[in-house]
Amino acid sequence: MIDNAPADPIPIAQALIRCPSVTPVEGGALTVLEDLLRPMGFTCTRLRFGPPDAAVENLFARLGDGPPHFCYAGHTDVVPPGERGWDDSPFSGLVRNGLLYGRGACDMKGGIAAFLAGLADFLRANPHPRGSISLLITGDEEGPSIDGTAKVLEWMQANGQIPDMALVGEPTSKVTLGDTLKIGRRGSMTARITLHGTQGHSAYPQKADNPIHRLIRVLHRLTTEPLDAGSEWFEPSTLQVTGFDVGNAASNVIPGEARAMISIRFNDLHTSADIAARIQAALDAEDARADLAISVSGESFLTRNDAFVEGLQRAIHRATGRDARLDTGGGTSDARFIADYCPVAELGAVGATMHQVNEHAPVAELRDLASLYRAVLEELLP
Amino acid sequence: MIDNAPADPIPIAQALIRCPSVTPVEGGALTVLEDLLRPMGFTCTRLRFGPPDAAVENLFARLGDGPPHFCYAGHTDVVPPGERGWDDSPFSGLVRNGLLYGRGACDMKGGIAAFLAGLADFLRANPHPRGSISLLITGDEEGPSIDGTAKVLEWMQANGQIPDMALVGEPTSKVTLGDTLKIGRRGSMTARITLHGTQGHSAYPQKADNPIHRLIRVLHRLTTEPLDAGSEWFEPSTLQVTGFDVGNAASNVIPGEARAMISIRFNDLHTSADIAARIQAALDAEDARADLAISVSGESFLTRNDAFVEGLQRAIHRATGRDARLDTGGGTSDARFIADYCPVAELGAVGATMHQVNEHAPVAELRDLASLYRAVLEELLP
Ligand SMILES: [Zn+2]
Ligand SMILES: [Zn+2]
Repeated sequence: MIDNAPADPIPIAQALIRCPSVTPVEGGALTVLEDLLRPMGFTCTRLRFGPPDAAVENLFARLGDGPPHFCYAGHTDVVPPGERGWDDSPFSGLVRNGLLYGRGACDMKGGIAAFLAGLADFLRANPHPRGSISLLITGDEEGPSIDGTAKVLEWMQANGQIPDMALVGEPTSKVTLGDTLKIGRRGSMTARITLHGTQGHSAYPQKADNPIHRLIRVLHRLTTEPLDAGSEWFEPSTLQVTGFDVGNAASNVIPGEARAMISIRFNDLHTSADIAARIQAALDAEDARADLAISVSGESFLTRNDAFVEGLQRAIHRATGRDARLDTGGGTSDARFIADYCPVAELGAVGATMHQVNEHAPVAELRDLASLYRAVLEELLP
Repeated sequence: MIDNAPADPIPIAQALIRCPSVTPVEGGALTVLEDLLRPMGFTCTRLRFGPPDAAVENLFARLGDGPPHFCYAGHTDVVPPGERGWDDSPFSGLVRNGLLYGRGACDMKGGIAAFLAGLADFLRANPHPRGSISLLITGDEEGPSIDGTAKVLEWMQANGQIPDMALVGEPTSKVTLGDTLKIGRRGSMTARITLHGTQGHSAYPQKADNPIHRLIRVLHRLTTEPLDAGSEWFEPSTLQVTGFDVGNAASNVIPGEARAMISIRFNDLHTSADIAARIQAALDAEDARADLAISVSGESFLTRNDAFVEGLQRAIHRATGRDARLDTGGGTSDARFIADYCPVAELGAVGATMHQVNEHAPVAELRDLASLYRAVLEELLP
């Protein structure tokens, strides 16, 4: 490495891509990271969670112990490459026409490599930085996300390692690097209703209690009154009935039971609990004898820490010349777990081909991302 | 037969019950009737409709050719007896403790036998009655009812045999013989809706068009606005959604299609066509791209011929001492077909055990029914 040249994320990304870490397999990827972090002075802790015969591997690495504590969060597991359609092996890490190919090039081995390179440059220029730096790298983000970030955070909590701020390196840029800074995400939940009526003959409905009619009224209430009109940083919450089933073949029989499935994405005006209460209230308003089952994928969150967000915006402007748009769109990420502990934002590559065949990232973009992450460290740990 | 004793319906009913005429099999039952009717002077015409290898047998028999033409309508086919639970053979025609046992004892071989006995008594007393008498006996009432009464009526129309009034002998009395005279029936129809939307992800509903939401709005319209408040002779019409199915397992997928099934019973304020138009209007009001399939089991009808109805009421009062309640309740019968051609009413036994195991009719009731039918002929053909 020439002394004043910036560290290159590409060889690091290639080393990571060549580890076949299809979720939940570690595939050597965390070891690649440990081997880079230890020489920089990081204390590395491997954390295994889940059933002994199928434990998920995670890595927590920290340098320094004072505040402020900045944490970079990411995952080395990748979605399965699929059987066909790839021009080369999904684990090749080949560079062709300025593009780095391989599963994880965007999501998010390329991003982790960029952070490692930016970190190396930052530490070379600032051998004794103020505060401390950590990495929370999980092997269970693309899978059920049970034995990954959520469990590592519990361990960090128990061991006094909760950071003051965290940046998730998911590919969140929309068109060009740095155009978007994610400061929140919608929550997501599913509600399943089984509504009990009284079976009967359609010719004598007064002797029956049609559960379909009652469920229609419940769902009409829920779908005609909007959950909200949106908030400062979020689009309106959405509620979609994605299932309604009865399974009755006889047209003249009023069935005894009807089932519905509802998918809800909600903003910072709601919690999953208040939405569940709203659904229960609609059932109660129609005197419905019903079973309501709620499963929550994640609560909504919004990071309101101005110093942290403004520091990130300054770094983006300095590294890319762009004014990042603050954004809360898209699905869930592990940021939903971190939000319970500290301010969290998401900043990464464009990721246009993530999860696709022939996933790739422009070499230039990953190098720019390394500079951006270096600028982030300079702004947040000055 | 002692000269002045009334004819006995029981041996006729037994002869009919012993014919295993499980729908659509003739089983010899129509031949039993022909053998009784020809000696009384009836011209008998056997009418076969349907596919040559599975034709349904029907019988039209007429005595006289002048007006008024009174027609007695019924069926000799019976519902299957089922495999088990009968104390004797379902085709035994055994009399025990004053009860005649066998499939069809109530519905409606007993009724036909009573008419034959009453007819014999009437003709013995009135060898040259005014007008004419016919019997329309089908072998396809308990089955699909396609090659039965409806086809016989077409043949009668083509051959100048449409009556001036018709009495269907179904077991329509409620508690005691003659307590009820049916002068109409509700119509019955089924509507099936397939509503087309645009599939999508529940997180981005603005890119999809949720067919469940649209179908809920359509059905909410149809189920919250009553079809009517009832009419002089009918209860309010009823509309029951008996099916709603999507078949989507993925809670975060907005499906492309949703289906509903609706069962409607409608009174004389409606036709199936105006109800179909009402459903189409609800679909149109919600801009629904939908396929609507309508199947009509029968239109509603109400017999408003006062002379006919009053003649029947006089006969009931004279034979039983009762004032029959005019009624339009219950399901469909072949009267729905006859109503298209002439005034029609329904008058028969109590039928408490019709379609059940150990079906039976009280011997005394069948004999009273024979007297009642004789009184009907006397009142209507004086
Ligand atoms: Zn990812
Ligand atoms: Zn019948």
